[in-house]
Amino acid sequence: MERADFAACLQAVREKAPLVQCITNMVTVNDCANVLLAAGASATMAHHPLEVAEAVAGVQALVLNLGAVGDREAMYIAGREANRLGVPVVFDPVAAGFTGLRRETARKLLEEIRFAVIRGNASEILALAEDREGGSGVDVAAADTVTESGLPRAAELAQTLSRRTGAVVVLSGAVDVVADGRQALFLRNGSPTMARITGSGCMLSALTGAFCGACPDKPFEAAATAAASIALAGERAEELRLQKGTGNATFRIDLIDSVFNLTVERLIQGVRYEIYQG
Amino acid sequence: MERADFAACLQAVREKAPLVQCITNMVTVNDCANVLLAAGASATMAHHPLEVAEAVAGVQALVLNLGAVGDREAMYIAGREANRLGVPVVFDPVAAGFTGLRRETARKLLEEIRFAVIRGNASEILALAEDREGGSGVDVAAADTVTESGLPRAAELAQTLSRRTGAVVVLSGAVDVVADGRQALFLRNGSPTMARITGSGCMLSALTGAFCGACPDKPFEAAATAAASIALAGERAEELRLQKGTGNATFRIDLIDSVFNLTVERLIQGVRYEIYQG
Amino acid sequence: MERADFAACLQAVREKAPLVQCITNMVTVNDCANVLLAAGASATMAHHPLEVAEAVAGVQALVLNLGAVGDREAMYIAGREANRLGVPVVFDPVAAGFTGLRRETARKLLEEIRFAVIRGNASEILALAEDREGGSGVDVAAADTVTESGLPRAAELAQTLSRRTGAVVVLSGAVDVVADGRQALFLRNGSPTMARITGSGCMLSALTGAFCGACPDKPFEAAATAAASIALAGERAEELRLQKGTGNATFRIDLIDSVFNLTVERLIQGVRYEIYQG
Repeated sequence: MERADFAACLQAVREKAPLVQCITNMVTVNDCANVLLAAGASATMAHHPLEVAEAVAGVQALVLNLGAVGDREAMYIAGREANRLGVPVVFDPVAAGFTGLRRETARKLLEEIRFAVIRGNASEILALAEDREGGSGVDVAAADTVTESGLPRAAELAQTLSRRTGAVVVLSGAVDVVADGRQALFLRNGSPTMARITGSGCMLSALTGAFCGACPDKPFEAAATAAASIALAGERAEELRLQKGTGNATFRIDLIDSVFNLTVERLIQGVRYEIYQG
Repeated sequence: MERADFAACLQAVREKAPLVQCITNMVTVNDCANVLLAAGASATMAHHPLEVAEAVAGVQALVLNLGAVGDREAMYIAGREANRLGVPVVFDPVAAGFTGLRRETARKLLEEIRFAVIRGNASEILALAEDREGGSGVDVAAADTVTESGLPRAAELAQTLSRRTGAVVVLSGAVDVVADGRQALFLRNGSPTMARITGSGCMLSALTGAFCGACPDKPFEAAATAAASIALAGERAEELRLQKGTGNATFRIDLIDSVFNLTVERLIQGVRYEIYQG
Repeated sequence: MERADFAACLQAVREKAPLVQCITNMVTVNDCANVLLAAGASATMAHHPLEVAEAVAGVQALVLNLGAVGDREAMYIAGREANRLGVPVVFDPVAAGFTGLRRETARKLLEEIRFAVIRGNASEILALAEDREGGSGVDVAAADTVTESGLPRAAELAQTLSRRTGAVVVLSGAVDVVADGRQALFLRNGSPTMARITGSGCMLSALTGAFCGACPDKPFEAAATAAASIALAGERAEELRLQKGTGNATFRIDLIDSVFNLTVERLIQGVRYEIYQG
């Protein structure tokens, strides 16, 4: 993946303004809608089982967020219809290993739906890859945190899940890993305060929907550009936080603003990534 | 409608602090509550079918937002009780033409409930007026956008729906149209960034509830003043955005702040409107 | 309670980073999660009846918010499991006297669950103590507002409810009353704009969960420190509001930021409290 591919994906979102449907949790649903609008996309959060199939027919991407596990019937319906219509589907396995209900729902979603991208933290990707328990709620478990020396193992984990599911896999952390069956990439942008707000992960998944909607034939590039975009926005928001002495609530606002103000130039200049030589 | 009527409506909200009940969607519910508090009103978001009728007895206005289509039973119950008690009811037909479930729910609400005000974008008002499909989710469809030359047709559309329903109709857009069966008014305030946040429309509908609750005998004036208030707040938020170089997330905060800080003087001086000479 | 106890409780939250599960309403759920993260705690908002018992096993505190009355089955299940496991449970009786459904749910929760802390405004605490109707939605009724001369009566009311339930009772208002069966304390921090945002009370209840999770053996000190922390944050946010000329939306952001930036030193120096000599 070249720097020009990042530029092309961001430009495609700005030009096509894809409409993204999110079946997502109430905690961060407002942030997901606003970050989509910030990026230049549109949002619909329709999630009633009686309307989601019809809604899917009018959108460019669908995002299923396991935090909305109470809406799992709507997710099955919408996901199947999206597959039938060729609408790309993103899966965010929020707290996938936390409870039996989530493990079971995640398993069924992976069986029934073909995902373009799966995006989660290390605990969540492990829960899917190994169908195991774990993760402390929505946060990554300390034991699962990926360190520099653990990156190759994380890349291989993501690639294994990618080969099994056919989806591009994004494992988010201090370094983000983006992988499909053939390649993997490490993204070294971001800021520590992203872990001090709720919704960093949900917003990235929503954005991934926007980028997949704009670039449906390039899910790897789309997922990487979404991750780079929010991570660069996080860096800018961190600068502002340190300048202003503000806290996590202002950071959350500045993060969305920085997606709004992100330019192709800043993306190309700012993205720090390397191809995994596995 | 005179400039003094705008002033009187805003003062009434500040003096009476009406309690407004919103059965509304989870995406923007927090913004709706905070903008009501900003205006000097109070908010309750009670929406359980087993308590909404009882709640209605304690409020000054009720707002039904079709984005909460999953709560339609609660909407029918609350709306009927509000009609029985003489509590004004505002309807926001969010994405009314987007799915069959929404069209059917909107139709039933219009059949069963007498609304004081119906407020939507052009696609939504068209969907109600012509009982037709359309609209891309929550946003106005490009083909429905009202241009300067289309304003007379928009005014007549709003008046037609008003005559059929007995409600004041507000068609929101770059120019807002406020109409009842006898008169129509064009409001020329607002800012383009209002379309780059989620909730501009929902917040206006919530505010319309507050103004109707404070001025129950003047739904036309109440609806026009609500629309003018948030549009002026939008202008102030836009000024701040351009000054500060911020984005849509800060704009959303500044929009609510500007409702909080709106004075009667600024409203009277800032409102730009004209009576439609149909 | 000594100043050093406030310091110890805040330090415990920072060091232990307790995971707090909130079954809470959609209006303020995002604020509750972000204020928990601001304080140094973690949040899970899992609320599905099929997973809450399992979730409770992984958390340090549970918060039940009556605004989520639609999730009452999940509250019964989670509350009983928390009692069984010794996880402290906080109850926020939002609008407890507003409707029959809430009165009945509150009654059943008090019968079935042992609470570590109950936190509400005067109308809500009265509704629980006297099992009576009242309160205008989520706000305190004018007739219930506690004035300076009414403080002794408020302390005795809180103590009565504490003796009946075994819970520490926090009655929030211009002056906060914290009471158990043996002692009561008046907290004189806070700011008037806290009543102009939605979620001040919900956020305090969430924080109370965090402090109880970090100091499970000291619910009185935990509840008092949570109340002092957000009230001091409110004072700082008020200073900023007056400096900047902003409104309630920026205040809400600054409030959470000020929890993020609260230091032990500022807490010790800023807290204004007195022991009730009943």
